[in-house]
Amino acid sequence: MALQTPIEYDQASPVVKAVYDDIMATRQTDWVNNFWKVLAHHPPTLERIWNNIKQVMGSGALDPLTKELIYVAVSITNNCGYCMASHTAAAKAKGMTDEQFGELLAVVGLANETNRLAIGYGVPVDQRFLSS
Amino acid sequence: MALQTPIEYDQASPVVKAVYDDIMATRQTDWVNNFWKVLAHHPPTLERIWNNIKQVMGSGALDPLTKELIYVAVSITNNCGYCMASHTAAAKAKGMTDEQFGELLAVVGLANETNRLAIGYGVPVDQRFLSS
Amino acid sequence: MALQTPIEYDQASPVVKAVYDDIMATRQTDWVNNFWKVLAHHPPTLERIWNNIKQVMGSGALDPLTKELIYVAVSITNNCGYCMASHTAAAKAKGMTDEQFGELLAVVGLANETNRLAIGYGVPVDQRFLSS
Amino acid sequence: MALQTPIEYDQASPVVKAVYDDIMATRQTDWVNNFWKVLAHHPPTLERIWNNIKQVMGSGALDPLTKELIYVAVSITNNCGYCMASHTAAAKAKGMTDEQFGELLAVVGLANETNRLAIGYGVPVDQRFLSS
Amino acid sequence: MALQTPIEYDQASPVVKAVYDDIMATRQTDWVNNFWKVLAHHPPTLERIWNNIKQVMGSGALDPLTKELIYVAVSITNNCGYCMASHTAAAKAKGMTDEQFGELLAVVGLANETNRLAIGYGVPVDQRFLSS
Amino acid sequence: MALQTPIEYDQASPVVKAVYDDIMATRQTDWVNNFWKVLAHHPPTLERIWNNIKQVMGSGALDPLTKELIYVAVSITNNCGYCMASHTAAAKAKGMTDEQFGELLAVVGLANETNRLAIGYGVPVDQRFLSS
Repeated sequence: MALQTPIEYDQASPVVKAVYDDIMATRQTDWVNNFWKVLAHHPPTLERIWNNIKQVMGSGALDPLTKELIYVAVSITNNCGYCMASHTAAAKAKGMTDEQFGELLAVVGLANETNRLAIGYGVPVDQRFLSS
Repeated sequence: MALQTPIEYDQASPVVKAVYDDIMATRQTDWVNNFWKVLAHHPPTLERIWNNIKQVMGSGALDPLTKELIYVAVSITNNCGYCMASHTAAAKAKGMTDEQFGELLAVVGLANETNRLAIGYGVPVDQRFLSS
Repeated sequence: MALQTPIEYDQASPVVKAVYDDIMATRQTDWVNNFWKVLAHHPPTLERIWNNIKQVMGSGALDPLTKELIYVAVSITNNCGYCMASHTAAAKAKGMTDEQFGELLAVVGLANETNRLAIGYGVPVDQRFLSS
Repeated sequence: MALQTPIEYDQASPVVKAVYDDIMATRQTDWVNNFWKVLAHHPPTLERIWNNIKQVMGSGALDPLTKELIYVAVSITNNCGYCMASHTAAAKAKGMTDEQFGELLAVVGLANETNRLAIGYGVPVDQRFLSS
Repeated sequence: MALQTPIEYDQASPVVKAVYDDIMATRQTDWVNNFWKVLAHHPPTLERIWNNIKQVMGSGALDPLTKELIYVAVSITNNCGYCMASHTAAAKAKGMTDEQFGELLAVVGLANETNRLAIGYGVPVDQRFLSS
Repeated sequence: MALQTPIEYDQASPVVKAVYDDIMATRQTDWVNNFWKVLAHHPPTLERIWNNIKQVMGSGALDPLTKELIYVAVSITNNCGYCMASHTAAAKAKGMTDEQFGELLAVVGLANETNRLAIGYGVPVDQRFLSS
């Protein structure tokens, strides 16, 4: 079986099933998306990454929607098609409007432009920024 | 004069001074950071980028702090030292706490990891994401 | 003919055929993969890159499998679909197991995460690393 | 205190000290490098990343030196100065010779070149790679 | 309607139609490519980016073909499939030959290789370059 | 000796000296920049890369200045400080004006922005581009 073929619940080992169950319980949903079903080919990675996601993406000093917007911003910059699809869906589920998506992309695009201008011109960091 | 040397207000042409004045008026501050003083070597770029920043980074469907967090996330992913310094300072000025900064970096780091896992495994996009 | 259409052996010029022959002889195989058949649209690039690959990827202080693992790691980080497919196949042909592939992806993912944490936090390089 | 200032052992909270202790015990050494001392500004990230590193970088189907070589390859591709310094030092400590380092860089460089040739030409993936 | 579905002229709002009209008038053509029809989902971005493109890509100290070659070089390095397709077509329309395309890709590939060698070896910048 | 320390002519082996001599003869100059003096730590890489540069960067269907502009564009996008310094110097030596440098950076910046907009919106490639 090719390593990118999702492993469905019925075919999964007990260790993998336990992670799927925890994903569904945590998210209060009845399905698991392909990212996890593909990571299931290497159970230590499946467990480890799921534990990381639970710790990082939950509510904290930043709200869950803001975290999803940041996730989408990174995924666009890295050109990860799957990640854009899944985290855009997650952001919508958490309330992102079309207008907010438009502004998110505008910021991501402009940041990528000014990043290269600052790099290309070799702009020296202002003393005020260093001491802040 | 090397192109990365900041052009100070007193040395600037009227066109450049007008942009510096607008930056200070818009930001309600009395100084201009080096990014603009270096772009001043090419006035069409200075004017154009400032106009873009004004349009994109102002208040809209996303609040200004959220936009700065997204800016920092992109700048870290692209490894732009100047941009990290300036937009982290801007985020702090708009209220970002140390705890929020810590969570921002945690999300940026983890997104960069899962981006490569999704890419490396070639995870197929779920039908549900395509139709949303 | 679009430049991405592979040039088959029968349609190839003598210069291109000579490279194809050397590829098959060096690899002890009877086929040439599309990368070379597309580079054939610009014969100087075809010859040059093949010579580079022969010099770099052969046995040396690092064994050929380790070199393929490094190639896959770079290709994932750059999101090159073709390169992931071809070098993963090459790694398998040289003995990479599914378990090794799983660990390779885990390292690549984690390195991409910690790279951004070190960049985002601006970690100063330890004196011990500088003097080593 | 700026967030990139390393937190020394004596200044650290009990939670942070416990991680430092585990790092030193696991690595059988008497010092902790700056990466961890900076992550200590956000203890949940410090603990999480250290747990990830312990799980991923230990001995497995790939040996520890090979894992370090892969780490360096990713860090060069992403241009992370700190990560290159720390993981090159780790690779040397695990036996990497200067000749191996030279070959590692040759593979990383060439992979970055052929990645862009495959992308720029839009090389179609060979049927044989898809079915493997 | 999914945000990536192109908005055709007949369905467009007056603001969007005005941009489409200006694109066709400026380019002396009777069609608009999908990039603009998708940006039309967020009219402020559509107008802003079109104004940027008109200012930057017109004739200046660099001729329009050279600007397109630079655009393609960046798009390959970032792995943007749409951008490679559209700007390669634009370069051809401005006179790029197949031989020039071959040399463009050779330079892009080699630059990506030597970039990583310079980064990986940590080459110190020559005094002569700093003072120029 | 640290691997990033340049190897001067007097300390170099005959193989390395021969490459240095060829660099100076080809460029009609009396010095060698640090990139080559550092690659000299791994003579096979030194020879190989110099041969690649000679083949790719010489006059062809694209003139040498255009090739340097493309090199700088890629180096900015990849954030290679050394490569920006050396190839900007090379472009100036071949006639690049400050105005051309300003336009080069404007194109590089804008391309990086629109690359992410095309990626983020998932713009479908126009039929006309596919058939060209």
